[in-house]
Amino acid sequence: MTLSRQDMIARDNDDALAGFRDEFELPEGVIYLDGNSLGAMPKAAKKRVADVVAKEWGRDLITSWNINGWFDLPHRLGDQTAKLVGAQAGEILVTDSTGINLYKLLAMALDLRPDRSVILMEDSNFPTDNYIAQGLVQQLGGHFEIRFASREDMQDQITDDVAVVALTQVHYKTGAVFDMHDMTRRAHAVGALICWDLCHSAGALPVDLGASNADFAVGCGYKYLNGGPGAPAFLYVAKRHHGQAGQPLTGWWSHAEPFAFERDYRPAKTINQMLSGTQPILSMAALECGLDIMLRADMRAIRDKSMALGQAFQDLMTAHCADAGFTLASPSEAAHRASQIAYTHPHGYAIMRALIEHGVIGDFRAPDIMRFGFTPLYTRYVDVWDAVQTLKTIMGKNTWQEPRFSRRENVT
Amino acid sequence: MTLSRQDMIARDNDDALAGFRDEFELPEGVIYLDGNSLGAMPKAAKKRVADVVAKEWGRDLITSWNINGWFDLPHRLGDQTAKLVGAQAGEILVTDSTGINLYKLLAMALDLRPDRSVILMEDSNFPTDNYIAQGLVQQLGGHFEIRFASREDMQDQITDDVAVVALTQVHYKTGAVFDMHDMTRRAHAVGALICWDLCHSAGALPVDLGASNADFAVGCGYKYLNGGPGAPAFLYVAKRHHGQAGQPLTGWWSHAEPFAFERDYRPAKTINQMLSGTQPILSMAALECGLDIMLRADMRAIRDKSMALGQAFQDLMTAHCADAGFTLASPSEAAHRASQIAYTHPHGYAIMRALIEHGVIGDFRAPDIMRFGFTPLYTRYVDVWDAVQTLKTIMGKNTWQEPRFSRRENVT
Repeated sequence: MTLSRQDMIARDNDDALAGFRDEFELPEGVIYLDGNSLGAMPKAAKKRVADVVAKEWGRDLITSWNINGWFDLPHRLGDQTAKLVGAQAGEILVTDSTGINLYKLLAMALDLRPDRSVILMEDSNFPTDNYIAQGLVQQLGGHFEIRFASREDMQDQITDDVAVVALTQVHYKTGAVFDMHDMTRRAHAVGALICWDLCHSAGALPVDLGASNADFAVGCGYKYLNGGPGAPAFLYVAKRHHGQAGQPLTGWWSHAEPFAFERDYRPAKTINQMLSGTQPILSMAALECGLDIMLRADMRAIRDKSMALGQAFQDLMTAHCADAGFTLASPSEAAHRASQIAYTHPHGYAIMRALIEHGVIGDFRAPDIMRFGFTPLYTRYVDVWDAVQTLKTIMGKNTWQEPRFSRRENVT
Repeated sequence: MTLSRQDMIARDNDDALAGFRDEFELPEGVIYLDGNSLGAMPKAAKKRVADVVAKEWGRDLITSWNINGWFDLPHRLGDQTAKLVGAQAGEILVTDSTGINLYKLLAMALDLRPDRSVILMEDSNFPTDNYIAQGLVQQLGGHFEIRFASREDMQDQITDDVAVVALTQVHYKTGAVFDMHDMTRRAHAVGALICWDLCHSAGALPVDLGASNADFAVGCGYKYLNGGPGAPAFLYVAKRHHGQAGQPLTGWWSHAEPFAFERDYRPAKTINQMLSGTQPILSMAALECGLDIMLRADMRAIRDKSMALGQAFQDLMTAHCADAGFTLASPSEAAHRASQIAYTHPHGYAIMRALIEHGVIGDFRAPDIMRFGFTPLYTRYVDVWDAVQTLKTIMGKNTWQEPRFSRRENVT
């Protein structure tokens, strides 16, 4: 039986997470299915950021480093993030960007496995991870290599010459999910370390770094954590690795005693060793508003609603857009994908532009992928219904055929 | 003849820069002599940041990357910074932190001088620069070394085994200024490259990277540029070096075609090759407010007032605090120091705490340095007079003898 709009409204009325929508600023007339790229704005961020500007910077000035806790932000936000991804306090820092954090972690991993030479990665990974690894290998001058494998072949490529397996848990295009426990176990079974990129995982589905025994992880603050544009990223180092190896971006915040102003570097023995320089405080403050909401929501409920939204979208696409040329590019079972669904279409770029003009915001990834993200804290079931109807209308009218914009549009 | 408070008020009345003070938020009852650590808040930042949060993030969401110019912020702010330090458009980016940018530049410099082994640095430099170089050398594994020299001996240590001379132009404690033209010429004379850290220079005194023929530079957004706490830093690469060598933090923003999502890294041939990941937009927006003010001020007038403020402070210290145990730790001539003055005192830490409690905010650097920064856009001559009188009162009463705080307080 095909879902009706009334069915979707009924589901919204029964939705235990429905109240969270009111905590976000969402523009009128827009169905926002791109929270997997930039999360919506928590209303609390307006006041919080205004306070940091006017009171903490404007009034308290330099004293804010102590009296307003700026020094502790990487740790405080890190400890909050830890609760979302199954880490302990003191294992996560919020700092720098995803790529820079990955660089630190891969360098540390190679340092911990000096007799091995391979970084194993996914060939169709979000490019920045692969580029960062390539930059590191290039810099280290010939001792190391990157082995690329497809997601399907990955487990067979985890051999005993691998120093570190560096995987993005949720594929940025398809939303396919790696089994973190299984892949971590396979890496450890051959003596390799593993580093998880959680950019499309954190806040989207339950993650348990501790239970899976992961070594390292990075993740993004501006997607499902709703931390604001370019929000600082997080990094995770399991406690057993603290103080065991170096990372190369040895800024003063990573020193054992930054305020001793010693000439020579001595690394901290805690997670602090992964810091580098001073962090952008305004952007850190906004991220805390996003984390605060996420910590009040039940991650199991988020996952259940995420799967239900995706399944509804898939069912409605089948019911209403079956003949329009779309091919599902995501795993067909909700349990095997995270909080997004992708379809390919030969005219995907033009169709996505038309959708955006009609108020349904998803995004496009070359060459032909249309991505739709479902963020359970602020996406309603009825939004899914309306989005598919908008797409159906566009396909019926052929209004999508003339692209008017450049391709440089969304960010991951 | 000793300066009187009336003399100082008269100078304020004649000050062509006096009007800029009104563009900054300054708390009542505070004399802020720490703009060399965290610049004061431009009033315009309140509205600008609020707009970026509410309108650009909240309303325009992901489309802001294009319609609100987020993609171009590293370049736009870079081009603005270029005007302040004598660079061309397209030679400066605002991105990441000072230390991370220095890491990229030193790696690039070593790549450009493969037959040389030495990074020459100042032993008493602000530690993060030395630590970053040590991290890089450690990572590169034995091929390179850091040679430390004192500021006095520096020119004699520029020998033909030096790959890059990495100097902070203005010393973070004493304010002493390297002659950029002379040192750059000396480096080039032996075939070495030079990288300038402008953290305490940019916005404090005229800098001309182009005329001095400098190769690389980094600098800080949150000091004299008034960009807000932890504002992103800037980096400079002279056009002749673009596309000639690699930097290791090869995130997707540095790719020749980031949105082609290619598997393999290909560097951009422009300044873009120095980018790495996505930047914190809220903090970038605040920095633009600081740059905007600075670009409307005359740098020669800033320098003249800076020297006059410092000279007045020095004269008043001699007149009013001569017997209190202070020793000038900065060059005695204003022309040889930048926009700060340092004194040592055996009880410097406690005295600075007392000063701050009395509303005069400077800062302390271990083991015994008291720093006073003079920021001509918002510091008045009368502030200098009142600051010295407050210090005189404190020294007369011995109220500074009981420190009540930890040492971890200001940031650089």
